Amino acid sequence: MPIETSLTRLLEIEHPILLAPMDIVAGSRLVTAVSRAGGFGILGGGYGEKVWLEQETAKLAGLSAPFGIGFITWSLAKRPELLDVALAAKPSAIMLSFGDPAPFAPKIKSAGARLICQVQDEAMARQALDAGADILIAQGTEAGGHGASRTTVDLVPAIVDLAAGHVPVVAAGGIADGRGLAAMMMLGASGVLLGTRFYASQEADGAEEAKRRICAANSGTTVRGIIFDLSRNNVWPAPFTGRCLINDHARRWIGREVELMQNVAAVAADYAAAKAAGNFDVAAVIAGEAVGLIHDIAPAAEIVERIAIEAEQLLAGRRNSVSSFPSPLVGEGGADAIRAG
Amino acid sequence: MPIETSLTRLLEIEHPILLAPMDIVAGSRLVTAVSRAGGFGILGGGYGEKVWLEQETAKLAGLSAPFGIGFITWSLAKRPELLDVALAAKPSAIMLSFGDPAPFAPKIKSAGARLICQVQDEAMARQALDAGADILIAQGTEAGGHGASRTTVDLVPAIVDLAAGHVPVVAAGGIADGRGLAAMMMLGASGVLLGTRFYASQEADGAEEAKRRICAANSGTTVRGIIFDLSRNNVWPAPFTGRCLINDHARRWIGREVELMQNVAAVAADYAAAKAAGNFDVAAVIAGEAVGLIHDIAPAAEIVERIAIEAEQLLAGRRNSVSSFPSPLVGEGGADAIRAG
Repeated sequence: MPIETSLTRLLEIEHPILLAPMDIVAGSRLVTAVSRAGGFGILGGGYGEKVWLEQETAKLAGLSAPFGIGFITWSLAKRPELLDVALAAKPSAIMLSFGDPAPFAPKIKSAGARLICQVQDEAMARQALDAGADILIAQGTEAGGHGASRTTVDLVPAIVDLAAGHVPVVAAGGIADGRGLAAMMMLGASGVLLGTRFYASQEADGAEEAKRRICAANSGTTVRGIIFDLSRNNVWPAPFTGRCLINDHARRWIGREVELMQNVAAVAADYAAAKAAGNFDVAAVIAGEAVGLIHDIAPAAEIVERIAIEAEQLLAGRRNSVSSFPSPLVGEGGADAIRAG
Repeated sequence: MPIETSLTRLLEIEHPILLAPMDIVAGSRLVTAVSRAGGFGILGGGYGEKVWLEQETAKLAGLSAPFGIGFITWSLAKRPELLDVALAAKPSAIMLSFGDPAPFAPKIKSAGARLICQVQDEAMARQALDAGADILIAQGTEAGGHGASRTTVDLVPAIVDLAAGHVPVVAAGGIADGRGLAAMMMLGASGVLLGTRFYASQEADGAEEAKRRICAANSGTTVRGIIFDLSRNNVWPAPFTGRCLINDHARRWIGREVELMQNVAAVAADYAAAKAAGNFDVAAVIAGEAVGLIHDIAPAAEIVERIAIEAEQLLAGRRNSVSSFPSPLVGEGGADAIRAG
């Protein structure tokens, strides 16, 4: 039976699995697939491209399942009119990440949408709760793309204890399978938000080569830093940095950030050209530490179903490979399980 | 009922809770308390002080419960005769961390002891399995003291998948309560190894002021680096660094490691004096990211019992605070829980 939590009830969804609003990658096609599968798709509003947002929200008009729209808060602050475009699409929720949500909260809530705030430490969590957040995403440093330094195992219980039952806490960062969902629920989370796992889906709008590299990457092959932001002249406010696959470009510049800045015009030109050419030895594949758990470009609905079923089985204690240890009965993905009592 | 896993069967213990062999801190008193409570105490053989080791193993002679003895592998390699002292005490297991276990494996195994190897990445795990490890500890960067950079949520499933049912995998790093134990079991671990939580126990041999600082520390107030090793002229091999509470000394030198090295004689003298004086504004309190979960200096047996009971309840689905959300029924420690099915 499906896992029911405060999150699934609040968002009226079947599975406590949220799609991270990955800029460019999480378009209406992926949102539709995740939401139809019983998860919660969140459109990647990202930095805020009005034409793109109008096009993509128009495609969501016929979607009967609940969905959300996400923004980079500090970027939305420069184009606040985009929130009106988003709310006109009648999302169940607006997700704000990286910045103060307070200026946008009243409009979101008066439109009847839930406010989801992604946070990376306790101070941001308090700020979000003060602004009226209905759901907190506790994002660990393992996450792909922008984030901060605290780890998922450290941050999730800390934010759960801080929220103390007032709002559901969703875990993000390093999660790509049912083991991760089940583990995060044990830490007190009410669900998970996944980026990289859905990047490697058939419906994601990212480049096929990027998806292939995610599937091929082993664990321990991503890095968090400022190289890819510097290389595209995209300055983010502290404490946020970006995680991506370690490629030739990252290897070249790790530890030489100052020199990169001193040569930024030339580097940025080369970087832009490589990106345009789809050369991911230079252009960043934005991905999190969960890459080692991802081996296929699957339909998003199948990803939702796999994660939900694996977590349900683990939580129900039905995957008892360890209780008959040593045994070859290790489940798909190598998931191990337990016998409690 | 107690949680039974491959680890509890292999070590013949009641709870899948291991004491990290913290140098100086995990003496015979703490080992005895953890093992008598049904966990698995591991004596902190550390760098290898022969007189200390003989004294502490002598005190373990009357202990009927299983226990282990741990060493820093690269340090043991300089004083290999200490392994004979350890094995003479008839431990159930020898735990080796930070270095190649192969030179010591034959003697350990022919003495009838299990070989526990702590690893920080896949290459170390393969090396340990090749050496005949009976148990792997997957140690995430959240851990206090020495460790490396991969996070617990990233590393544990990776090592579980690599071990693929051949040996039990124990999770370490960032864990201090039953939520953490339950979560790690969902990731496929067969138990947990805890340092900082047991540091703040009545039986730990650490300074009372250090224990008090651990209890007072909030989450997010530790740092991993080389400052405290540099400051005590204690050079560790790469990739290992140390995590401790952020204190005045850490704040002073973070980002200025080269300058510290250039002034190491003076800094080391000041550091040694501060350590001798119990001045923990300068001397390091070695602690992991789980400090935010630790609020009391409890008897070790109570710590084992609390963690076991909380994990058992979570795994059995008996802590349903979320299923009646919103609700004030958040359990001790703010643990939240789920309803699966």
